[in-house]
Amino acid sequence: MKKFNIGILGATGAVGQEMMKILAERDFPVNELRLLASKNSAGKRIGDYTVCEACAENFKGLDIILGAAENDIAERFIDDIKASGAVFIDNSSAFRLDPDVPLIVPEINPEDVKKHKGVISNPNCTTVISCTAVNALNSVSPIESMVVSSYQAVSGAGANGPKELFNEVDALAKGEEYAPRVFQHQIAYNVIPQIGGEQFMGYTSEEMKLQNEGRRIMHLPELKVSCTCVRVPVVRSHSVSICLKTREKISVEKARELISAAAGCKLVDDLDNQLYPMPLATSNQDLVFVGRIREDLTDERGLNIWCCGDQVRKGAATNAVQIAELVIKEL
Amino acid sequence: MKKFNIGILGATGAVGQEMMKILAERDFPVNELRLLASKNSAGKRIGDYTVCEACAENFKGLDIILGAAENDIAERFIDDIKASGAVFIDNSSAFRLDPDVPLIVPEINPEDVKKHKGVISNPNCTTVISCTAVNALNSVSPIESMVVSSYQAVSGAGANGPKELFNEVDALAKGEEYAPRVFQHQIAYNVIPQIGGEQFMGYTSEEMKLQNEGRRIMHLPELKVSCTCVRVPVVRSHSVSICLKTREKISVEKARELISAAAGCKLVDDLDNQLYPMPLATSNQDLVFVGRIREDLTDERGLNIWCCGDQVRKGAATNAVQIAELVIKEL
Repeated sequence: MKKFNIGILGATGAVGQEMMKILAERDFPVNELRLLASKNSAGKRIGDYTVCEACAENFKGLDIILGAAENDIAERFIDDIKASGAVFIDNSSAFRLDPDVPLIVPEINPEDVKKHKGVISNPNCTTVISCTAVNALNSVSPIESMVVSSYQAVSGAGANGPKELFNEVDALAKGEEYAPRVFQHQIAYNVIPQIGGEQFMGYTSEEMKLQNEGRRIMHLPELKVSCTCVRVPVVRSHSVSICLKTREKISVEKARELISAAAGCKLVDDLDNQLYPMPLATSNQDLVFVGRIREDLTDERGLNIWCCGDQVRKGAATNAVQIAELVIKEL
Repeated sequence: MKKFNIGILGATGAVGQEMMKILAERDFPVNELRLLASKNSAGKRIGDYTVCEACAENFKGLDIILGAAENDIAERFIDDIKASGAVFIDNSSAFRLDPDVPLIVPEINPEDVKKHKGVISNPNCTTVISCTAVNALNSVSPIESMVVSSYQAVSGAGANGPKELFNEVDALAKGEEYAPRVFQHQIAYNVIPQIGGEQFMGYTSEEMKLQNEGRRIMHLPELKVSCTCVRVPVVRSHSVSICLKTREKISVEKARELISAAAGCKLVDDLDNQLYPMPLATSNQDLVFVGRIREDLTDERGLNIWCCGDQVRKGAATNAVQIAELVIKEL
């Protein structure tokens, strides 16, 4: 079996570390694994690997580079990566809306991978989770709109998110002060209705992603999404409350049937027995859990849905490795 | 100035205790304050007061009884209270949908107090907060529907809610086990998409209150509300994400103007400066904070709104005392 040379750009961060773990878990056919990070991290040991500096020289000879860095890093290295000939599967939002860059959730639009020109984008975490949850409905009747409120875990802000939450909890217990650095305000015992800065008509950058990226992933150019993104004091797994409208009515029973059969989804929908998706129960795994499916009482073509998924895994690292699995079929 | 004999039924609970505080804060003209609770609590001292047993004998001579107990207690004593001649302002949900019982938010429908026949209901906490936030819009163009997701604090479950949250946080820090008693599942570092049991088409009792009670409070018999109620690890103050549709379009600018002038509301809506309602900043006060006002991207007659309020105060105790202030004008 052919094996591939894989780089991880931003290997020392939370998503980069998870990518390493998931490549191993899924027995990805790796020949060489090269950990790429800033000059400061170069030389650092992670397991059996030594981190090397991200630079044009060190991209050479790689088949695929998994991007786990922020937009500025992705933008800085995009030309060098292209020149290296490696396929770049990027988790930043830098290229997600570029029409030349496929935006992929492998359970939804795997065929779009074939259109790539060297760069493929991994979608926003809340978008991956929400689209995976609702796509089975979309395949029966197009989704016209979604009203969404999110409950996003602190690890969505990287490894420093959980540290800040625990530091705050600790400081509060001791009656000490703790000045927030990662989040805009204290997140312990609080919720913060802001993720990202303002982008469009009072919506934040994070709030616009589900509409803009969802359109590309689900091939719904007219999809309308009104999103309110909220940070909650949860360590891992994002939860999303979705009220969606399909062109034709889909019954609750049909929706349950479709979602329980959908790739990447697990239906957990039994209120009487207190069973529904929750962040605690959906962390450290790859499925999107879906439940609380109800007819929308405001619109006969609407459905209410609640879903949770591990945003570091399915929302980022796992989805990227799944894209890599599609890419190597073409290599 | 005339003074009144006031009873608090369920005086030892979280809401009962808050009512005592608020009667004092607002200089309510109290002649006698009688704390009523179960036989077990009778004789207990609270400040300068001695708790007496809730029973027909002890309701005599009271002008107003503020109910801070659960439905079963309210139902058990309703006949005795009526026989006593006291006006019963009840915080339980037992009589809220009874057409003979006015359901009041003093900033919204104070005139309904005049219709009472001895019993007035205090609405559900999330309903008080949400209706106070949106009513100014309703006064300009009727609200047709609302899609709502809530972020409800643990103190909404009474004084044992915060205890359980802190016990769990503590147990987790020590690596110990803690079996949830108040909530269905661990609430520390988690969110639970269930408040109440199933009531209607998969919606919980809590989720149906905003529609059923909102219709009576805002005089909107056709109001449609799709609600998802979620418990979050916040100590105090509920937050609510509302996407509402009015009969005629209301602009964001107009909505801001209306809400900033509305009784009981405080507009906090400046994303650039990271200012918006949050539970931490809205606890231990009586206003409903409103912000993140945006045009709904899915419907031109829609608006997205985020609001927070202290559910023990405006959501329960303060609202009840405000109703009592209306009642004594008629006595």
